[in-house]
Amino acid sequence: MQVKHLEITENMTINEFIKQLDESGVLGAGRIAHATNLLADSIKDPDTQVFLSLAGPMIPGGLRKIVRDLVANKQVDLIISSGANLTHDLVEAFGGNHYKSTGEDDEVLQDSGMGRIADIYTHADDFEVFEEEIQKIFADINQEYKQLSIQEFIYEIGLRIDDDESFIKMAAENNIPIFAPGIIDCMIGLQLWIYTQDHDFILSAAGDMTYLSDCVFKSKHVTACMLGGGLPKHYTLASNILTGGIDAGIQITLDRSEGGSLSGAPLEEAKSWAKAKKGSNLVTVIGDATVLFPLIVAGALDKIKI
Amino acid sequence: MQVKHLEITENMTINEFIKQLDESGVLGAGRIAHATNLLADSIKDPDTQVFLSLAGPMIPGGLRKIVRDLVANKQVDLIISSGANLTHDLVEAFGGNHYKSTGEDDEVLQDSGMGRIADIYTHADDFEVFEEEIQKIFADINQEYKQLSIQEFIYEIGLRIDDDESFIKMAAENNIPIFAPGIIDCMIGLQLWIYTQDHDFILSAAGDMTYLSDCVFKSKHVTACMLGGGLPKHYTLASNILTGGIDAGIQITLDRSEGGSLSGAPLEEAKSWAKAKKGSNLVTVIGDATVLFPLIVAGALDKIKI
Amino acid sequence: MQVKHLEITENMTINEFIKQLDESGVLGAGRIAHATNLLADSIKDPDTQVFLSLAGPMIPGGLRKIVRDLVANKQVDLIISSGANLTHDLVEAFGGNHYKSTGEDDEVLQDSGMGRIADIYTHADDFEVFEEEIQKIFADINQEYKQLSIQEFIYEIGLRIDDDESFIKMAAENNIPIFAPGIIDCMIGLQLWIYTQDHDFILSAAGDMTYLSDCVFKSKHVTACMLGGGLPKHYTLASNILTGGIDAGIQITLDRSEGGSLSGAPLEEAKSWAKAKKGSNLVTVIGDATVLFPLIVAGALDKIKI
Amino acid sequence: MQVKHLEITENMTINEFIKQLDESGVLGAGRIAHATNLLADSIKDPDTQVFLSLAGPMIPGGLRKIVRDLVANKQVDLIISSGANLTHDLVEAFGGNHYKSTGEDDEVLQDSGMGRIADIYTHADDFEVFEEEIQKIFADINQEYKQLSIQEFIYEIGLRIDDDESFIKMAAENNIPIFAPGIIDCMIGLQLWIYTQDHDFILSAAGDMTYLSDCVFKSKHVTACMLGGGLPKHYTLASNILTGGIDAGIQITLDRSEGGSLSGAPLEEAKSWAKAKKGSNLVTVIGDATVLFPLIVAGALDKIKI
Repeated sequence: MQVKHLEITENMTINEFIKQLDESGVLGAGRIAHATNLLADSIKDPDTQVFLSLAGPMIPGGLRKIVRDLVANKQVDLIISSGANLTHDLVEAFGGNHYKSTGEDDEVLQDSGMGRIADIYTHADDFEVFEEEIQKIFADINQEYKQLSIQEFIYEIGLRIDDDESFIKMAAENNIPIFAPGIIDCMIGLQLWIYTQDHDFILSAAGDMTYLSDCVFKSKHVTACMLGGGLPKHYTLASNILTGGIDAGIQITLDRSEGGSLSGAPLEEAKSWAKAKKGSNLVTVIGDATVLFPLIVAGALDKIKI
Repeated sequence: MQVKHLEITENMTINEFIKQLDESGVLGAGRIAHATNLLADSIKDPDTQVFLSLAGPMIPGGLRKIVRDLVANKQVDLIISSGANLTHDLVEAFGGNHYKSTGEDDEVLQDSGMGRIADIYTHADDFEVFEEEIQKIFADINQEYKQLSIQEFIYEIGLRIDDDESFIKMAAENNIPIFAPGIIDCMIGLQLWIYTQDHDFILSAAGDMTYLSDCVFKSKHVTACMLGGGLPKHYTLASNILTGGIDAGIQITLDRSEGGSLSGAPLEEAKSWAKAKKGSNLVTVIGDATVLFPLIVAGALDKIKI
Repeated sequence: MQVKHLEITENMTINEFIKQLDESGVLGAGRIAHATNLLADSIKDPDTQVFLSLAGPMIPGGLRKIVRDLVANKQVDLIISSGANLTHDLVEAFGGNHYKSTGEDDEVLQDSGMGRIADIYTHADDFEVFEEEIQKIFADINQEYKQLSIQEFIYEIGLRIDDDESFIKMAAENNIPIFAPGIIDCMIGLQLWIYTQDHDFILSAAGDMTYLSDCVFKSKHVTACMLGGGLPKHYTLASNILTGGIDAGIQITLDRSEGGSLSGAPLEEAKSWAKAKKGSNLVTVIGDATVLFPLIVAGALDKIKI
Repeated sequence: MQVKHLEITENMTINEFIKQLDESGVLGAGRIAHATNLLADSIKDPDTQVFLSLAGPMIPGGLRKIVRDLVANKQVDLIISSGANLTHDLVEAFGGNHYKSTGEDDEVLQDSGMGRIADIYTHADDFEVFEEEIQKIFADINQEYKQLSIQEFIYEIGLRIDDDESFIKMAAENNIPIFAPGIIDCMIGLQLWIYTQDHDFILSAAGDMTYLSDCVFKSKHVTACMLGGGLPKHYTLASNILTGGIDAGIQITLDRSEGGSLSGAPLEEAKSWAKAKKGSNLVTVIGDATVLFPLIVAGALDKIKI
């Protein structure tokens, strides 16, 4: 099939733009079009569950509303997140913000109480509010429960959030489970440890597996949409081993494959482990997810509607 | 300034999408928005000349029409290209095409006469036509000239092309110079060597410098838009050393900086060499230019119109 | 200071080679020399504790003996590992192996029960033995304990391993703690879940923080040596926030910074979060840790001896 | 075949270290061992010609002596270089140096006349001497010749250099041709243009092809060793198309493949173009060539001797 050259004009819609990428069909253009079509089909198909994994600074990096909207519209069915993305959702839910870098030196930032994520800043003040508020929520949860699995714990937090822009809240309200196997490695985890110093509460590391495996077993088909790699990518793929692997997968990443780390591994590799089915529909998009996921979602929403 | 989260809805236009990236302002989103605004401003400003450099498979990868339209609309003022991008423009001008990969093994492709560029195929048949046609053009040029600089040579080729979709033809018609310091390292160069085996013609390696320096000196301001790195990126930057460096620069690349190669070097480094002015407006977009340049151009066209 | 050109001769020792890199002092050569000197100084200094983090396929990729020897010789003081590296250590401890790729298609590998990690294969047979053996160990541990933190759990496993080449065993014997906050996301975690389906045992997610913070507080100085990124890198840095950050850090990675993920983040960024002290000695080596860490260790061992 | 874990001890030689990498055989370790064995075999075999390509800051980055020694010992047979690596060899031949970065801002460097290449500095003073000296050499050459091909031109420069550490001089003395198709894009090119403003001399862009094709035709086997990508990599591969492609190839690069640029392209792709023979022995090493090439050369020298 011939490569058709992209025609770019004034006043284009995202839908027209994605169509141009699709007709080119090669390199990044082909990958983005493939991912967009696959995401649209997966959302539209009532027999397909969409698992979304979040690693890297997706929430601080501008995707909070997109994730929240996908949850609110039940366009994703299950989330596997790094602890950090949950923390940053809560920081904003409690009134904090993320800020654009002004290019300060990191030692100066330390003195100013500003944590840096690439060109994003956080403020110590916002984390102080976060600490206060999350401790109150822990205490409230602890009145009802002495032990929870991580997913149950996040769900309970979600029920106690007062911000409709929070994807954790929206997920709780819509019964979309959020898993975070590495939750202990974030500010929520640190605060929980402080809380448990003088309170009787235990978070079970292995407690989610039964529910997660139920989610997998009850899914006729699974499309995994993986933003970044890390623990969330692996947990997403590994949970599907129980049914012979995912049916389709999209990953958006800047990581590379040669060092052998899972974050950069081609999705094809997952087939060898039966984490992806033979014949599964897999596409890797190389690039920055904070631009390319919005583009793919915008394109998919247009296709779903039609 | 706060990071505003992107809001993605149905029926978005590119203009609305870029506006969302701009309001986020961080990571890839911020870089794309910055590049889009800078390109639009540079095209609109009559005192700014836009230099476009092409390295990597831009023409086989689907950008032929975009480059051609930028040239036809005089939205770029000067092009510095790899030899390969010129060759691939001519392959199509002479009736050939580029094709989407069907995943064959490279040894099988060799037997089938199909050259591979990532997931793009070329056909030996198309190159045979190319060879015949380019030899005719060489002979025609040689009737008038015994010696040309590389830019003059490409211009003369452009005048003899019969395809309005060719950016080389459009550039010749619009008096937009194309430089290609490494032209000898492509099929045009190979064919030229064959031609010169029994014809009296010499292509001067250093012959373009006077005209290129004239182009630079007569430009009040220069914005360099660099797709990929390599020789075209360096030549673009180095040519501006004569006037103290470029005033603004956009590069789109997947290369990285740590090995010290120019292709992955941050544009800031160009300041040390006076290839970029102090205070110049520089932005590096990390990603695949075959997707991100069309997005940036689409966004810029909307901004120019307004 | 001038860049001295490397002189490479026959019969060089690693020590001479590293000396050449040091005298060059730039690009990768400078980074490797810096890391080697820093690791040697950190190991030699009785007041410095070396924290080693393991992400990516370090154990399957050939580093098992190096990590084991560093532990046996008490040259590292604390390990933070991905679950996978623990699993792969146990697979070998129970008699299994890792194998070099023979280039099979991933769908064929699935049918053959061979999991692929880049160009490394695992065998289903080895995992079957692993499953049997780890279940026996769980049962044995469970006779003594109904609840453990993750670090305690790995320690108890280590005590029950019968392979002196296992770094988990050596760590247990030498009282070098191993933390693995994401342990649930690996075959050990999956097997533990199966075990807990009909046994009364709970693994506490937050249970390690007290001991880890004790380790940090009792360390006069901390040098973090981070192979790969992910959860292990973040947990290593974050645990040091309690004392104002690490004093020195080495990371070896192929990940890049522009997407904002922690795995690719420059170590300087850790200063803004007080995860690295102001003035701390930080070096990032870009490359494949399965080659560069052995080189750095070899160089450091020579320097320690002297 | 099983992955054998690396054993690292005190007082290791490079030879022992490479042997450990070879026995591991996977990931970067396997690639380095493969490249080392291939380079050693290629140098030892009198029927194999070794083509070395140089892109990226190899000479400023500390490899000048290694390249010079390979040339002096006739361990490479033909060089294809970027213009910049030739310029930097001459800068040192004329008494200049390269310097380690002291971390200055690029705008400050501009004012100080210091050009930056990653963490390497150059001094304007050294370039002033370069300009004076190269102009004298041009004048001397021009007394004998009015037209030269690029390779002939570099050879003539080499004959006029008074520094035994210069690889250009050593190459001229040993009749090892140096090709540099993009020479016009470096300080030598700029100075040549200045020279030709008022002198009658022409450098022929296509003039080298006949000699280069003779070199290729007279080589029984060719092993291409490619440091970095760019024009030098492509020219190296493309020149071998005349005989059906290289027999073996090593590339060391940090570039990646997904964008389709030749610099990051897997060597396998060259088979489709008949730039590498079917069944050719090809290995890509991912990493910084300024560390890994010295390591590979050191390992190869030990193997050659044996």
